[in-house]
Amino acid sequence: MIDPAAFCDDAIARLKREIPGRAIIAASGGIDSTTAALLTERALGDRARSIFVDTGLLRAGEVERVSEFFEKSHLRFDVLHASDRFLHALEGVADPEEKRRRIGETFIRLFETEADKFGTDRLVQGTIAPDWIESGGSLRDTIKTHHNVGGIPKDMRLKLVEPLRDLYKDEVRAVARHLGIPSAERQPFPGPGLAVRIGGPVTADRVRQVRVANAIVEQEVERAVSAGTLVRPWQYFAVLLPVRTVGVTGDNRVHGTAVSVRIVESVDAMTATAMEVPRALLSRIAERITRELTGEIVRVLYDITDKPPATIEWE
Amino acid sequence: MIDPAAFCDDAIARLKREIPGRAIIAASGGIDSTTAALLTERALGDRARSIFVDTGLLRAGEVERVSEFFEKSHLRFDVLHASDRFLHALEGVADPEEKRRRIGETFIRLFETEADKFGTDRLVQGTIAPDWIESGGSLRDTIKTHHNVGGIPKDMRLKLVEPLRDLYKDEVRAVARHLGIPSAERQPFPGPGLAVRIGGPVTADRVRQVRVANAIVEQEVERAVSAGTLVRPWQYFAVLLPVRTVGVTGDNRVHGTAVSVRIVESVDAMTATAMEVPRALLSRIAERITRELTGEIVRVLYDITDKPPATIEWE
Repeated sequence: MIDPAAFCDDAIARLKREIPGRAIIAASGGIDSTTAALLTERALGDRARSIFVDTGLLRAGEVERVSEFFEKSHLRFDVLHASDRFLHALEGVADPEEKRRRIGETFIRLFETEADKFGTDRLVQGTIAPDWIESGGSLRDTIKTHHNVGGIPKDMRLKLVEPLRDLYKDEVRAVARHLGIPSAERQPFPGPGLAVRIGGPVTADRVRQVRVANAIVEQEVERAVSAGTLVRPWQYFAVLLPVRTVGVTGDNRVHGTAVSVRIVESVDAMTATAMEVPRALLSRIAERITRELTGEIVRVLYDITDKPPATIEWE
Repeated sequence: MIDPAAFCDDAIARLKREIPGRAIIAASGGIDSTTAALLTERALGDRARSIFVDTGLLRAGEVERVSEFFEKSHLRFDVLHASDRFLHALEGVADPEEKRRRIGETFIRLFETEADKFGTDRLVQGTIAPDWIESGGSLRDTIKTHHNVGGIPKDMRLKLVEPLRDLYKDEVRAVARHLGIPSAERQPFPGPGLAVRIGGPVTADRVRQVRVANAIVEQEVERAVSAGTLVRPWQYFAVLLPVRTVGVTGDNRVHGTAVSVRIVESVDAMTATAMEVPRALLSRIAERITRELTGEIVRVLYDITDKPPATIEWE
């Protein structure tokens, strides 16, 4: 285990050497990139600019939540609203790997533009050891970026700076504590955001649907946790399925789509158990989703598969 | 309520008058068409031929189960194996209404051929009052046929004979009992068979998958009912979804599809409740489906939607 204070002094000195001019930082709101951002700001002061991208693929309330987290961490930051760019990039794409690729490329193009404006070619990101070890060790191929998106364009003009590259998660947590970053009970959220919680093509309507459904799952699970009727799950979310199914309203048959609800227990995300949750909670989630998205969602399914054989995320 | 004995005498007399020559009977294995078939056989003797069509879209063991039921009912019958015909007719069709239309047409063409061979143009089917009342009262449009399939071709050459046309379900049950038809605890099964339990296109592989998954759901539910851990549900089945999702086998990510499990309580199918079943039962179903269809099904979902807002069947 590293000594957090010594690591910070060291990292700041290294950043000062490595970055003679300015740098932008890709800040996702996660602990890794927030730690990297704070270290960079300590090293460069006004020559550092942290950017949080609102992709339009975030959960309900995410921009506000992340902004508040940055404020509590005393990090200066800008929010870049780019939902139109991302929606446009994803138009007509159903394949999850292609979604990831396009989201990764859009991120990089945005950061290139912002770097240009800020007068730099350095992009700081919060890559940690497991990020590149898991993906094979080669730098360029394995940059999942701070957003865990799939690959980056070969012609990227930015030079990456990764101050946390050699740290493991618990070491990052120690460094974050040392920097005064508040610990947040944030459940894992995939880098490509709601795009990979939408089976099939991503449209503004479908993003809205999965966002509403997901907010309902979060609210109801958190209410149950507060009420003591549920142990806090590892992860809990909604997935919009690319299906057409039949419902009834009054005497009429109506068509709509279906949502899958995933609530899992896990220690390290390597394995996970589909959680046994009170039936009243599931019924309430199904009832709210089909009511608050009347005419759009007619069916709600609860994912009962453990990992393995299923992954935690849908795609 | 009718008098079953008087109704039978009457119906047999009417059939004798209406059908001077021969007739074929569309026998699905349900109580309605079995009753119609037995009445016709009493009226015409050897001039009646009951035909049970194996569409290839039946559940595992269904042909054997129906054959046994006919034998116990002392009904003479032929099984017509036609899975290739139906699979061919459904090639590339994803739309559920179009599936129903093609299945309906294939049925009629088969019966036309069989009627020709048998030297008749009369087709007896087990339509009962709710069948045509529910669908608006016009004869030609409302013939859901004994298989509840959607419509029949306009140019059908067969003349329909419907001896149970004015009866309600409890009346049919009384007549069936009078004719010595054993009461069968058969859960409702849609006319178009597994085709409407397969979201998206129907292929031989996908029929096999949903059939295996469905047999697992039936076996496990029936085992739980026998063990006394579950009240017998109104209906319980598996649906194959037209989705691609991610799983893990060892260290590898694999792609596969997902199955939805539906288990409902109901009194009359007008409303239904997604049943609260023991979690161990759901886990066992998920575990068996993903194991017995390894590499094909990686995720199992439990439908938690009541009717309304969802229907009992998927499409």
